Amino acid sequence: MRYIYFLSDQTGVTAETLGHSLITQFDYHDFQQVTLPFIDSEDKAKEAVLRINSENQNSEYKPIIFSTLVKEDLRLIVREIDGLILDIFDVFIGPLEKELNQKSVRKTGLAHGMSDTKNYMKRIEATNFALSNDDGGVIKHYDMADIILTGVSRSGKTPTCLYLAMQYGIYAANFPLTEYDLEDVVIPKSLESFKGKLFGLTIAPERLRQIRKERRSLGSYSSTKQISYEVRQAERIFKKNNIKFIDTTELSIEEISGKILEETGIERRFRQ
Amino acid sequence: MRYIYFLSDQTGVTAETLGHSLITQFDYHDFQQVTLPFIDSEDKAKEAVLRINSENQNSEYKPIIFSTLVKEDLRLIVREIDGLILDIFDVFIGPLEKELNQKSVRKTGLAHGMSDTKNYMKRIEATNFALSNDDGGVIKHYDMADIILTGVSRSGKTPTCLYLAMQYGIYAANFPLTEYDLEDVVIPKSLESFKGKLFGLTIAPERLRQIRKERRSLGSYSSTKQISYEVRQAERIFKKNNIKFIDTTELSIEEISGKILEETGIERRFRQ
Repeated sequence: MRYIYFLSDQTGVTAETLGHSLITQFDYHDFQQVTLPFIDSEDKAKEAVLRINSENQNSEYKPIIFSTLVKEDLRLIVREIDGLILDIFDVFIGPLEKELNQKSVRKTGLAHGMSDTKNYMKRIEATNFALSNDDGGVIKHYDMADIILTGVSRSGKTPTCLYLAMQYGIYAANFPLTEYDLEDVVIPKSLESFKGKLFGLTIAPERLRQIRKERRSLGSYSSTKQISYEVRQAERIFKKNNIKFIDTTELSIEEISGKILEETGIERRFRQ
Repeated sequence: MRYIYFLSDQTGVTAETLGHSLITQFDYHDFQQVTLPFIDSEDKAKEAVLRINSENQNSEYKPIIFSTLVKEDLRLIVREIDGLILDIFDVFIGPLEKELNQKSVRKTGLAHGMSDTKNYMKRIEATNFALSNDDGGVIKHYDMADIILTGVSRSGKTPTCLYLAMQYGIYAANFPLTEYDLEDVVIPKSLESFKGKLFGLTIAPERLRQIRKERRSLGSYSSTKQISYEVRQAERIFKKNNIKFIDTTELSIEEISGKILEETGIERRFRQ
């Protein structure tokens, strides 16, 4: 078993994201992943070095370390680790300083910090919007929505709305298609005036069955026949009403969200 | 104005996260940021090159490009961009291949893809848990909670619960302190048997006032006096009951979540 460490003076999200992108490129699954966040002093850096070196001293595999430490003194300490150190700042900050003709500030807490209060508020407001417009509860705020996701139960609407809100600040509502809508192949009356904001999610029946079974294993809710019918009717509704839709079967929440941005051209409200 | 591009064969989340960490290290705010996601064919790569080169041909500043393209042929095409190309795979995949003694698979869609269905389900279930245990609505599932956040209204409980769920798969409930709890300096009766799971959020009164004013500007809800009182009483409750708590004033949702993990030692349910 090989250790992978994510070292950060902050939460470790950047180191983890980068590291994950890279290690998923290997057919190698026997990794023990450890995040060491908030390493913001020399003492903590030394502690991390001791821990990693002792944890690996008898291993035949060297540990791999993804580091996003910003401060020079901490990065120097961390070089004492006996392992493969992939230091993001070491590699990229030099070329950036040269290109921007400016020294970097080398301050911690800037990337995911509260440096931008406005963005924080935008994110919270978008999240609140998603929460209060989840599952067709209230429709009176749909004029504020950037997008209204629709589809059958468990097609991924709610988590996608939340992700769109938290990652991009997008105001996303969602509205489930009921059995009456499905039967009549119509969009719900209350959505008619917001047709331009509708976006459909569909999913392969077999995958949907698997998801629904996790929640409620009995009854027609997760029966093959019922599910195939619902999915078929939902797609008919989308096509009949020229509603763009995507198949979420093979997609993660990030991918569904990314594809929605791409297909609709909706602008995010902030970048983080 | 200088352009920054995030090139990805997937959503662009990794390129954006890394790029953001780096560029926030510069006192330079005149960036125009553009994400070009889903570059998964030679045609799309060529299109990106054309777009970037033409968008910048008359600029005095070279564009900066953060790329997470995985496939060799696409990465070669992208090198035709006239700008500073920071190619994450170029830099790190070589040392990793050497250390792991294995060629990387160079397949797209692994990092944020559906490669792990179990993780997808864990994430969805944790998100559903946060939603159905938001704001003290239902408390019958608290035995399943990993953590129960508590604090005054708008101290950051809900977004933190959602982030803990989506990023780490943690089952996080939240419960607001009511005016009666605050007055009596007690934890709500219904929480008594879950005291070990409680974690408090506090916030500087001035910051809370700012947040509340964005929502409802009138009344005692956002009055200085009322807010100072609530925060003071909440902190008294935490201290009296030995409930760990953190001050969220200067923290982003990522940071609050990260610190909660660190302070409580709660294990995440998955890594992504």
